[in-house]
Amino acid sequence: MPTAENMILLVEDDPDHEALAIRALRKANVANEIKVARDGAEAIEYMNGIASGVNAMPQLVLLDLKLPKVEGLDVLRAIRAADKTALLPVVVLTSSDEERDIVASYRLGVNSYIRKPVNFTDFAEATKQLGMYWLLLNQCPPTP
Amino acid sequence: MPTAENMILLVEDDPDHEALAIRALRKANVANEIKVARDGAEAIEYMNGIASGVNAMPQLVLLDLKLPKVEGLDVLRAIRAADKTALLPVVVLTSSDEERDIVASYRLGVNSYIRKPVNFTDFAEATKQLGMYWLLLNQCPPTP
Repeated sequence: MPTAENMILLVEDDPDHEALAIRALRKANVANEIKVARDGAEAIEYMNGIASGVNAMPQLVLLDLKLPKVEGLDVLRAIRAADKTALLPVVVLTSSDEERDIVASYRLGVNSYIRKPVNFTDFAEATKQLGMYWLLLNQCPPTP
Repeated sequence: MPTAENMILLVEDDPDHEALAIRALRKANVANEIKVARDGAEAIEYMNGIASGVNAMPQLVLLDLKLPKVEGLDVLRAIRAADKTALLPVVVLTSSDEERDIVASYRLGVNSYIRKPVNFTDFAEATKQLGMYWLLLNQCPPTP
């Protein structure tokens, strides 16, 4: 299996949010490779590739909730259900601040839940802060 | 039951680390009340007080691992086992970077694992960053 590459998997269907998140991470001097899954099915496929040993383990998954094909909560469920990815840090980054989404995410074992700020400057600042926190400060579990 | 007070519960037996963490949080403009439990038994007692409705729910628990009386991992286990605190954000803040502690913490459902920097300036900076992240950016689950 490929070793951990300190790579970020960004699960995001909105091209504007994708571009903005990547730019914010780069501005925060996050040099890690960023892979993008543009719907829930692509994210699940990537996770299956980790389980079968063809895809590298990310250091962090940034997960939108409202996704085409497979919803974000189902992606999170699949990540936690598979032995290899059960402990992988996952941060939900979503425009939803509905209580049921927050509770469901924590019940499914999300590490953190961030509401996407509506304002673009604040969105960039939030992405920068979370990138620095999870990639530079947090200690990831070792790759199984 | 008292409502959430946006309070931080710091579980820390080292008085120097306690003072440093509180100072760093204040410098990061974290104005939240900070309660301190100085060993694992005190932390468990506080959690039992939440379950019985006499203690307020913290917004965040900062948990050292090497604690007198009851170890940090057992405190984490107790937090996750009780309905009222099962989803409470817990960040391990410890001098241990042993793989078994990291893996055990994630298996028990910690939200994040931070190694205490040895250098005091770096310790203060890490505490400041994690305070800002968990108190200002992260969306807590609602108090049950």
